[in-house]
Amino acid sequence: MSTNVLRTAEGWWAVRGDRAVPVATKAVTTAELIADRAAVHEAAASGQEGTPVADLVALSPVTTPCRVVAQMVNYRSHARDSGFSGDIPPAFFRKASGSVSGPGEAIVRPSHVQFLDYEIELGLVMGASLPVGTVVEERDLPTYVAGLVITNDVSARDVQLTKTQFYESKSYPTFTPTGPYLALLEPADFALLIDLRLRLTVNGELRQDRTLADMIVRPARALTLLARFQTLDPGDLLLTGTPGGTALKAPPKPVEKIGALLPPAMKWKAFFKSQARNARYLRADDVITATIATPDGRIALGEQRTPVTDADQVRGE
Amino acid sequence: MSTNVLRTAEGWWAVRGDRAVPVATKAVTTAELIADRAAVHEAAASGQEGTPVADLVALSPVTTPCRVVAQMVNYRSHARDSGFSGDIPPAFFRKASGSVSGPGEAIVRPSHVQFLDYEIELGLVMGASLPVGTVVEERDLPTYVAGLVITNDVSARDVQLTKTQFYESKSYPTFTPTGPYLALLEPADFALLIDLRLRLTVNGELRQDRTLADMIVRPARALTLLARFQTLDPGDLLLTGTPGGTALKAPPKPVEKIGALLPPAMKWKAFFKSQARNARYLRADDVITATIATPDGRIALGEQRTPVTDADQVRGE
Repeated sequence: MSTNVLRTAEGWWAVRGDRAVPVATKAVTTAELIADRAAVHEAAASGQEGTPVADLVALSPVTTPCRVVAQMVNYRSHARDSGFSGDIPPAFFRKASGSVSGPGEAIVRPSHVQFLDYEIELGLVMGASLPVGTVVEERDLPTYVAGLVITNDVSARDVQLTKTQFYESKSYPTFTPTGPYLALLEPADFALLIDLRLRLTVNGELRQDRTLADMIVRPARALTLLARFQTLDPGDLLLTGTPGGTALKAPPKPVEKIGALLPPAMKWKAFFKSQARNARYLRADDVITATIATPDGRIALGEQRTPVTDADQVRGE
Repeated sequence: MSTNVLRTAEGWWAVRGDRAVPVATKAVTTAELIADRAAVHEAAASGQEGTPVADLVALSPVTTPCRVVAQMVNYRSHARDSGFSGDIPPAFFRKASGSVSGPGEAIVRPSHVQFLDYEIELGLVMGASLPVGTVVEERDLPTYVAGLVITNDVSARDVQLTKTQFYESKSYPTFTPTGPYLALLEPADFALLIDLRLRLTVNGELRQDRTLADMIVRPARALTLLARFQTLDPGDLLLTGTPGGTALKAPPKPVEKIGALLPPAMKWKAFFKSQARNARYLRADDVITATIATPDGRIALGEQRTPVTDADQVRGE
């Protein structure tokens, strides 16, 4: 049975239903909290009445700096949206951990970004070091993965597509809302992963809604592939890809192939002109909600609720 | 006048000609050494005879973990090699800092990599924090950049091109040979940057040879663009791109455009078939040398000399 943890400016809390009990720990970083998970279980099992969760302002339960690595195109439904057909070579990219923000914090659109998009993703929080060369089998997952979080891999599509490398477009501050809960898992919980359902709404309209059954490269294989070149440490974060339903959809194949013959600047100009009519991109005052849970609620990572704002507004205030 | 520092298993050394004097410092990381640069100057100015540099085994003067960020396509000659025409949007990507290795250490080719390539690059070592939003003018460079190193941005081209994101292909262990010297700069030295000449040979054959005059986005502007989204801290490393002359050359334009109409798997199969006849890719027992210096030697980062070996050989030993 998983245990939900949340973090506020005051420290760490063990969540029990709609109330939270302070964790008696000196842990400051997520890695330290994971090393002291006994203190979490003690708080959860204590008779304390606790504080209503609704009265707490949750921060990201993943502290930074840490490594934030993400899987590219990892749900079949998103692969279709992105215009892929046939085999997709599994690939990773980095996000700056400075992009991590709280589960209720505003997502700030930089003034040079026109096409701001959402991507709900399950985040794996590491519980042990993963040296280069490690082969992770399904049965090894509990050794390496301490817990799960909701993340939103916010993406500036105009930056992403023109620069080809995803790093900048997904790394601006507030581009990785994380939390509210870090669900610390027990070994038996890993069998439930496949049933986790990811749901994201914008202003109440359901945009993304899939379970992990739609995932292409699952966590154990993802960690094995990542460990071909990258070491991870406790508290590091792996984003496992987003299902279909993002604002961005690849142009239809014939258009894309003709586009491939144009110089890149002209190609993108035409594409972005068509995207300007796409009302699904995020705008100031939109509100995004994101949940990840199993149908029986045995794993339930809470609800992320993030408004969107413009950098100009933030500066003006 | 810049001061060269080198690092061995025993600690830090100030270099004076062909001899090195131990630095009396408690610094372990590069950031700590930069904070204690007074100790370096003291060692350099001391009357000690020192040890012949030739007797020392240099490690990377950049300690890890640290952030390793790299600029994509940043020399006009490399842009031509890569088939770019017109404007190239400046872009960044990350390398795992676990890829950093010493200036005399072997570059290990993973067994699944067929097309191993070299890229000599000037590395900037940060001396101060660069918060998001910082605008760096030419005159601010000495505030943010503590010193310079030779780096080789070793690249697995078959992984890089098929995965589109550069992160994995450039992050395997030993894929960022660094050093031998960290040149700590004085403010007046920054005017010499434009004269730095990068030279790389493979088995004595000159493959890359350009000065920074060929660079597209220069250091002050690169840091400004990077600070749009990424914080840096002292000891972090920015690789500033490679000049022309790598083994990889883009296919001629008509071939590339026809290639764009093929499914990706077929396109790459055809391209790699043509590359199999390209003898410039690195093979076991090749030896790479890399130097970066001004013509007058006022900045001279030493010589990197790295053999190439196969992972199978390493494991077989």
